Amino acid sequence: MKFRRSERLVDMTNYLLEHPRQLVPLTFFAERYSSAKSSISEDLAIIKETFEQRGIGTLQTVPGAAGGVKFFVKVKEEEVRPFIAHLCDLIRNPERLLPGGYLYMTDIISDPQIVNKVGRMFASAFSNTEIDVVMTVATKGIPLAYAVASQLNVPVVIVRRDSKVTEGSTVSINYVSGSAKRIQTMVLSKRSLAEGSKVLIVDDFMKAGGTVNGMISLLEEFNAQVAGIAVLVESENIEERLVDEYLSLVRLSDVDVKEKKIKVSEGNFFSMNIGNR
Amino acid sequence: MKFRRSERLVDMTNYLLEHPRQLVPLTFFAERYSSAKSSISEDLAIIKETFEQRGIGTLQTVPGAAGGVKFFVKVKEEEVRPFIAHLCDLIRNPERLLPGGYLYMTDIISDPQIVNKVGRMFASAFSNTEIDVVMTVATKGIPLAYAVASQLNVPVVIVRRDSKVTEGSTVSINYVSGSAKRIQTMVLSKRSLAEGSKVLIVDDFMKAGGTVNGMISLLEEFNAQVAGIAVLVESENIEERLVDEYLSLVRLSDVDVKEKKIKVSEGNFFSMNIGNR
Repeated sequence: MKFRRSERLVDMTNYLLEHPRQLVPLTFFAERYSSAKSSISEDLAIIKETFEQRGIGTLQTVPGAAGGVKFFVKVKEEEVRPFIAHLCDLIRNPERLLPGGYLYMTDIISDPQIVNKVGRMFASAFSNTEIDVVMTVATKGIPLAYAVASQLNVPVVIVRRDSKVTEGSTVSINYVSGSAKRIQTMVLSKRSLAEGSKVLIVDDFMKAGGTVNGMISLLEEFNAQVAGIAVLVESENIEERLVDEYLSLVRLSDVDVKEKKIKVSEGNFFSMNIGNR
Repeated sequence: MKFRRSERLVDMTNYLLEHPRQLVPLTFFAERYSSAKSSISEDLAIIKETFEQRGIGTLQTVPGAAGGVKFFVKVKEEEVRPFIAHLCDLIRNPERLLPGGYLYMTDIISDPQIVNKVGRMFASAFSNTEIDVVMTVATKGIPLAYAVASQLNVPVVIVRRDSKVTEGSTVSINYVSGSAKRIQTMVLSKRSLAEGSKVLIVDDFMKAGGTVNGMISLLEEFNAQVAGIAVLVESENIEERLVDEYLSLVRLSDVDVKEKKIKVSEGNFFSMNIGNR
C-alpha cells in the first residue's frame, strides 16, 4: 500500500512527536510508507521547516548508513514569555494565601496543559545537555518530572520521604531543610538509579534549596552526577541559598499576608545560558 | 503570509494532538494560516483519515456557526494487544520478586513512554464518557493519572495519606484497606474538587480494591460521581473484591515466591464495554 505525501506528513509528525530524542532511520519511514528514501527526505525537510517556524522543535539529521533523524523540542521565546506572564498572573491571586504565608498552587500543577508546557520549556532549555534520568521528590514534583522526561525520552526517579515495601532495598540520607532548619530523611530505591547517571533534578518549588541539596547528596551516594536543576517557582529573599545554578520560570519575591499581596516576576529562564539556547 | 498545505498539515497535526477534546473553530485555523475555510476542511479530512488509519485517534466535526473540530484519542486493538503482551513479559520477570510476595514495578512506571501509552489506552476506552477530572492517590498512581488526564483534557486531583500545609483545608475519611484489613486515612484538599464532578479513578495496582473504595467514599463527601475506574494491574485470587466495575490492562493471577514464578495475563480491557469502544 502506497501513501500520499499528505498522509505521510501527518503520520510522521505524530511519530516524531511521540519519539523525541530517538534516532529514527530513514529506512524505517521508507518501509512504513513503501516510499523512496528521497521522498522521505523531502517530507522531513518540510517537517523540520514547519517545526522550527512554529516553535515546535527541530530535526537533527544524522548522516551515514546508521543515520536517520532525531526530533528535539525547542520552544521559542515568543511562546515562553507570555506563558510565564500568565503563570505570574495566576500566582498573584490573593486567594492563594494560606495560613503561614504558604501559597495554594495545587490547581496550577493539576492542569496537564500547564504541566506539559512547563515540561516542554525545561526540555528545550536542556536540549543540548546529556541527561540519563530526571529526578524529583514525592509528590508535587512528580507531574513536572514526567512532563520533562517525556520530552527528553528518559526515565523518572522518585525520591521518597519514607521507604515502602514495594521499593526493595533503599539508600537513605538525612539532610537539613534550608528554611526550617529541620533534619529530614530522603529515601531512594537501590535499583532505581545506575551508577554514573547524569541527572536532571526537577521540582515545583525551591526556597533555600534544602530539598534540592538533599537530592544532590543522595546522588553522591549513587555516584551519579547533577546534569541540571529546574524548578517551576523559586522563592527570593533567602539569606543563604544552598544551590547556585538552577533554572526557574517564576520568581516569588514577596508574600505580604497582612496586605494580601503576592509579588511575582519572571524567573531566570532567559538569563541562564544552558547549552546554546 | 500564506502557508502551503504540507506546512498546514504538520502544524495542524501538532496542534490537534496538543489540544485533545477541545473544540477548535475552523476560523481559528483559517486565520492561523491565512487560508480559506474550504482548504482547512480538506486538510482536516486528510488528517482524520490518517489518524483513523494509523490508530492515532479521530476527529469529530461539530457543524454550524459555533462549530469546529475536536480530536479524540482512539487506539486500535492491534496496538493494545502487543503492548499488553509486552507489559506481561516485563512483569513476569522473577527478579521483580520482593520479600512478602510484593513485586518491584517502579521501573515500569518510571518509563514515560510506557506511562503515556497506558494513558492513551485508558483515554481511548473512556473517550465517550463524560469526565471532569481524573483522581488518583499519591504516589504511584500520579504519572498514570496525568497521562490519562492529558489526553482527556481535564485536571488531576491527588488524594494524600496525610494533610500538608500547602493544601489549605481538607476533607479526610477513614477506610479499610481490603487486603490487610487495616484502618487507613485519605485526605483531599477542599478546593480541589467541585461538587457534582464526574470522576475517573486511576491507579497503578488494585488488590481487593480497598484504596479505590476509599476514593469512592471520599467522592461521596464531595457529592461527586464515579465516572469510571482504570488500573494498570489488577490482582486476582481475592476472596472479596470491593469494587465491581473497573478496567485493567494486566491481571496478576499468582505469585509463587518459592518457585519464583509470576503468573500474569491480559486484563479485562477488551471484555469491558465502555462507550462504543
